[in-house]
Amino acid sequence: MLGEKNRAIPKLMKAWVLDGPHELRLTEKAVPEPGPAEVLVRVDAAAICGTDVEVVSIGVPAWVQGGLPFNKNWTPGHEYMGTVAKLGLGVDEYAVGDRVAVEVHAGCGRCERCRMGMYTACLNYGMNYGEHDKGHRANGFTTDGGFAQYAINHVNTLVHVPEEMGDEEATLIVTAGAAMYGLDTLGGLIAGESLVVVGAGPIGLMAVALAKALGADPVILTETRDARLKIGGKLGADYLINVTSDDPVAAVARITGGKGVHYLFESSGNPKVLNQALEMMTRGGRICLAAFPLEPALVDVAKIVRNNLFIYSIRGEGRSATHRAAALMKQKRFNAKLLHTHTFPLQELPMALKYARDRIEDAIKVVIKLREA
Amino acid sequence: MLGEKNRAIPKLMKAWVLDGPHELRLTEKAVPEPGPAEVLVRVDAAAICGTDVEVVSIGVPAWVQGGLPFNKNWTPGHEYMGTVAKLGLGVDEYAVGDRVAVEVHAGCGRCERCRMGMYTACLNYGMNYGEHDKGHRANGFTTDGGFAQYAINHVNTLVHVPEEMGDEEATLIVTAGAAMYGLDTLGGLIAGESLVVVGAGPIGLMAVALAKALGADPVILTETRDARLKIGGKLGADYLINVTSDDPVAAVARITGGKGVHYLFESSGNPKVLNQALEMMTRGGRICLAAFPLEPALVDVAKIVRNNLFIYSIRGEGRSATHRAAALMKQKRFNAKLLHTHTFPLQELPMALKYARDRIEDAIKVVIKLREA
Amino acid sequence: MLGEKNRAIPKLMKAWVLDGPHELRLTEKAVPEPGPAEVLVRVDAAAICGTDVEVVSIGVPAWVQGGLPFNKNWTPGHEYMGTVAKLGLGVDEYAVGDRVAVEVHAGCGRCERCRMGMYTACLNYGMNYGEHDKGHRANGFTTDGGFAQYAINHVNTLVHVPEEMGDEEATLIVTAGAAMYGLDTLGGLIAGESLVVVGAGPIGLMAVALAKALGADPVILTETRDARLKIGGKLGADYLINVTSDDPVAAVARITGGKGVHYLFESSGNPKVLNQALEMMTRGGRICLAAFPLEPALVDVAKIVRNNLFIYSIRGEGRSATHRAAALMKQKRFNAKLLHTHTFPLQELPMALKYARDRIEDAIKVVIKLREA
Amino acid sequence: MLGEKNRAIPKLMKAWVLDGPHELRLTEKAVPEPGPAEVLVRVDAAAICGTDVEVVSIGVPAWVQGGLPFNKNWTPGHEYMGTVAKLGLGVDEYAVGDRVAVEVHAGCGRCERCRMGMYTACLNYGMNYGEHDKGHRANGFTTDGGFAQYAINHVNTLVHVPEEMGDEEATLIVTAGAAMYGLDTLGGLIAGESLVVVGAGPIGLMAVALAKALGADPVILTETRDARLKIGGKLGADYLINVTSDDPVAAVARITGGKGVHYLFESSGNPKVLNQALEMMTRGGRICLAAFPLEPALVDVAKIVRNNLFIYSIRGEGRSATHRAAALMKQKRFNAKLLHTHTFPLQELPMALKYARDRIEDAIKVVIKLREA
Repeated sequence: MLGEKNRAIPKLMKAWVLDGPHELRLTEKAVPEPGPAEVLVRVDAAAICGTDVEVVSIGVPAWVQGGLPFNKNWTPGHEYMGTVAKLGLGVDEYAVGDRVAVEVHAGCGRCERCRMGMYTACLNYGMNYGEHDKGHRANGFTTDGGFAQYAINHVNTLVHVPEEMGDEEATLIVTAGAAMYGLDTLGGLIAGESLVVVGAGPIGLMAVALAKALGADPVILTETRDARLKIGGKLGADYLINVTSDDPVAAVARITGGKGVHYLFESSGNPKVLNQALEMMTRGGRICLAAFPLEPALVDVAKIVRNNLFIYSIRGEGRSATHRAAALMKQKRFNAKLLHTHTFPLQELPMALKYARDRIEDAIKVVIKLREA
Repeated sequence: MLGEKNRAIPKLMKAWVLDGPHELRLTEKAVPEPGPAEVLVRVDAAAICGTDVEVVSIGVPAWVQGGLPFNKNWTPGHEYMGTVAKLGLGVDEYAVGDRVAVEVHAGCGRCERCRMGMYTACLNYGMNYGEHDKGHRANGFTTDGGFAQYAINHVNTLVHVPEEMGDEEATLIVTAGAAMYGLDTLGGLIAGESLVVVGAGPIGLMAVALAKALGADPVILTETRDARLKIGGKLGADYLINVTSDDPVAAVARITGGKGVHYLFESSGNPKVLNQALEMMTRGGRICLAAFPLEPALVDVAKIVRNNLFIYSIRGEGRSATHRAAALMKQKRFNAKLLHTHTFPLQELPMALKYARDRIEDAIKVVIKLREA
Repeated sequence: MLGEKNRAIPKLMKAWVLDGPHELRLTEKAVPEPGPAEVLVRVDAAAICGTDVEVVSIGVPAWVQGGLPFNKNWTPGHEYMGTVAKLGLGVDEYAVGDRVAVEVHAGCGRCERCRMGMYTACLNYGMNYGEHDKGHRANGFTTDGGFAQYAINHVNTLVHVPEEMGDEEATLIVTAGAAMYGLDTLGGLIAGESLVVVGAGPIGLMAVALAKALGADPVILTETRDARLKIGGKLGADYLINVTSDDPVAAVARITGGKGVHYLFESSGNPKVLNQALEMMTRGGRICLAAFPLEPALVDVAKIVRNNLFIYSIRGEGRSATHRAAALMKQKRFNAKLLHTHTFPLQELPMALKYARDRIEDAIKVVIKLREA
Repeated sequence: MLGEKNRAIPKLMKAWVLDGPHELRLTEKAVPEPGPAEVLVRVDAAAICGTDVEVVSIGVPAWVQGGLPFNKNWTPGHEYMGTVAKLGLGVDEYAVGDRVAVEVHAGCGRCERCRMGMYTACLNYGMNYGEHDKGHRANGFTTDGGFAQYAINHVNTLVHVPEEMGDEEATLIVTAGAAMYGLDTLGGLIAGESLVVVGAGPIGLMAVALAKALGADPVILTETRDARLKIGGKLGADYLINVTSDDPVAAVARITGGKGVHYLFESSGNPKVLNQALEMMTRGGRICLAAFPLEPALVDVAKIVRNNLFIYSIRGEGRSATHRAAALMKQKRFNAKLLHTHTFPLQELPMALKYARDRIEDAIKVVIKLREA
């Protein structure tokens, strides 16, 4: 570790930049300098999220609207981990040599939402350039991200990685953080309560694992692919429902003896799920929406009211949930490594993206590894 | 008042009963006996709610499903007030002679929801007959209601009426209680926060009045009828938007300088409102649904997530909100009497229902008056 | 199990009754009849709580004040489990033959606190006799308890016992429920957060076990007896502080690097603990008081304010926490059996109480076993 | 107002500085430059808080411990208002010429507490110098304050002043904000609920006014001075208890018919109040501590538990309560001007402090006025 601390920081680094839709280019950039409250992270590994695939296809982060003045040469990637290489002014929360994983959002700290602790709903999202700099940072969305050898992080977007956790697993902390935030938003007291998780993508699978770690019972996973359901089962799901062959509403009724479930976590992005969910819930139940359907869908609003349902939503991982998720992963409460299926070196990012997008060889989490074992 | 206490209770009373759709009949019934935790109320006045109109047209309460074993001879009416005439075993919360108004729901006290205080989401709704008696009572829905000279009430459904408040105004306490519960559900801390109220029915108007009493600013009321908007203005609404001539989404954007509002209370029952609401909210805003649209509608679910919105719903008036509403009415914080437009004697209930249904002479709250002034 | 269901219920049963301080007497009583919402439980096992010891020494339940009209022939005992023998009117939540454990409180369902779900703070505690019957029931405090062959329970005080759980372990569900309620009251989201548990009595030990199950880290247990600390260690406590040899305030400072802990659960009943706790907390930390010190103590109130601390308290097990605790025990998340040290038959209750009171042979939980293995 | 905007900012300004205990000195300083997220405020009026009196007598802010590296030439004063004179980088929440009042705390935005929205419990309080700059700012405590012609403010510490509100009244917004935060912490839903306010200092009086504005009933004010009680009455208190002649515990029992109150707000700093409060509360009641007693006091901890009380505390005004308080003041919901008793020009600050400290001529709020009418 001493070696880590003394490792010289080069002037230049390799980094992927996005010139336009599908125009990723490997280039050299200056290694950036951390400002106050910031840290320079040497990236050791970076996972690919579905949003990265989307960003690369659009040429700009999905959530950024209205042509913000992005600095060109922008580097994507927001699920990374690494080693603290240099500290900005006033930082003592981390030391050079510390292994860290990231969360995406550093709120502006000054809008109504940040002031109430809802920093992932920051009203100044994307306002971090020039005269409009209000301090918000979203790693790999509105700032340079982790598909590079080094990345700048606000201290608010870091979490310690336990010594015994591998780099690949650590890239999944942020994924677990999003699932955790969803469960927290649903109320937190889920021991012995029933939960449906819709969609066995990485966030859905993490929701299964975390819910079981916290005692939810039963946890019902609905999904279209058997391979994914199988992993859900390994992570503890009590019931696996393949919705291509089984009607999920009927399945939930069957499993719960007609009572419906207390909680539902939607991470599939299927626009029809919300209306189906209304049929799955017990009166007074709570739904958390965590994905972005591409199209509107019919919703029987009266059912929401008749069943006294509450519908929450999350934008990524808030309320320091990443820290809670990392704590449970440190305690080895579930095997997050089951989600990691493929590894590529930095120069093969395009191939890694292709694996992630096309789910080649049943890819779930494809990881770019920068540090040699 | 001494006279009240000593007034003899007759054996028989006049009561309206519903035999089938539109088959209301004035009859004589035995005056019922209050059981443990119950009170016999001599009804002094009963207001007509939109739900009463609906119930009479269907022949059975709207929320009751599956043909529950209702006792025939059932009497509707749930927005009433009166004078305590007799106490059941163990009741000392009220005394004979007390003036009381009602709320609808007495939860079973034993299901998961009642145990957490969500008694309007009681899982044993309607389970109050014979072998299935689990103690739930919904006045005028699953028990006999207030279109009669006397009615039984569980103590949980009563609230004291201040001496100086008229009978007609007191029938509106339960309406105010529903609006109050909606505002409470939205978070409660609304001073200086912006609110849209959709629909200027009685509950919507009460939401305007209560929100202004608690300091919300601005309160924007959207509605189709100018006469109703005018009353909303008298109750304190800062902006009155007639949606037949003005686009409510554009109006909210204009009023809030493009920021959107913090809270929205939907009481119109228009199925399109939810999707419109998603366009009116600031990020992290909260919506409360209080009405039952007759048809499903397209909802752009991704907008809920992208804007980190929370959607709540209420079934009537819970969390003792009726008591808070009554307290504010006692303090004369707004003029609820503006909602009371017409009065009829008990025997003219059908005409009163017609006025309420067809909004004859701009009727808002039509009240059946049993006690002579 | 069929045998269980058909087992005949006798007319008479053996039961201990308390005539006065230390005047326990084994007698025969009529087996009681369950009323509406009640169940007759054949008691299979009953644990002894410190409160039972106290009750027997005083001759009346500790919390009962002012000489309520207790029916004589009163039977103590509130930590029991057994088999449902008969159902009262309207009960379908349980079936004859079901194994059940109990929680203490059935709230009146009609006071301000019950209406908000705070049924352990019921304002009608003890009001369950004759004309004052408001429906409150506290098993083994204001009603007959479990040191008998049969006991009546309101359905609200029951929880299912998993098939594979032994009778002795099941008596501890209510103990775990109290600890769980304390953790819930502290906020619930404790994964990765630090916690001090003061006192390794049964509730404190359960707090350790549950907090570790939910991911708290580190959990610091402070206590005077090494034998108890050892069990705390087996239940997962990360740090064991014997306060007879180590200053707990200094120990917490040492362990947390001077930061203090996020949460503290006080179950020792030592009056000095609250003031010590103020020195152990990080700013904005939360304390839960779960025990009843016999004497007042000096408290530096300014420290509460300066450190922005919140102090909560619990009266037994509320908010359905018993169900959450039972769910985690069913999932074998910790070994509650470590708390069970001694077993006696019903007729040896006085000896069992002596073991519990004097902690003979390091007794923790002494259990009365009625059913033969 | 155009004149305001164009008014030239001088290079030098008059400012009071504190050299040591009681060593206040009027001097000239450079007008400071606002940094990013900061605003230069031309101070128009500044009120004197009890804490200012204490700070001046100690020579350093009360809450600052351990000899932080304060810049010498430090200027106290934290209850001020004025006109925005210049904007720092990225500020568009305010414009030059806007009238603003202040709140004290700008949290660091990066510690555990700030991340959850508890910015007044910031763990980096006082860490805003040199290498340790973590962004926390407490106006007039850890930064230069308002007893000067100009002051720098983080945008988080500003709130708009309505046009029709006078300068003197606007200095009281921060006082009202602290009282509001206390009420919010107690739960917020106080309409029709009973409240005791202990101590009729400025914060206590504001608590009375705000609680009545939000519908609390009854509000009982306890205090030692009749003159202060009289003002409490004008602000709406329903019962005025002079504790020098009336026992407050007995008075509360009398007023509430022995039930006790739902809420209590302690702002007297009398160490004995907490224990008295335990006798005044209904079961499940909530206490908020807002003052700093100089000495420890005996507390009967068992009563907290037996009555299931929760004890909260506040450090000044958090959770954006200042904005809610300002909204209610803008709506003229109570007459805050009743608290303003004396006015002095800037050069007479020592005399103003003397009036405030010795309560000369029944002084409550003594205001330094810098702008001529």
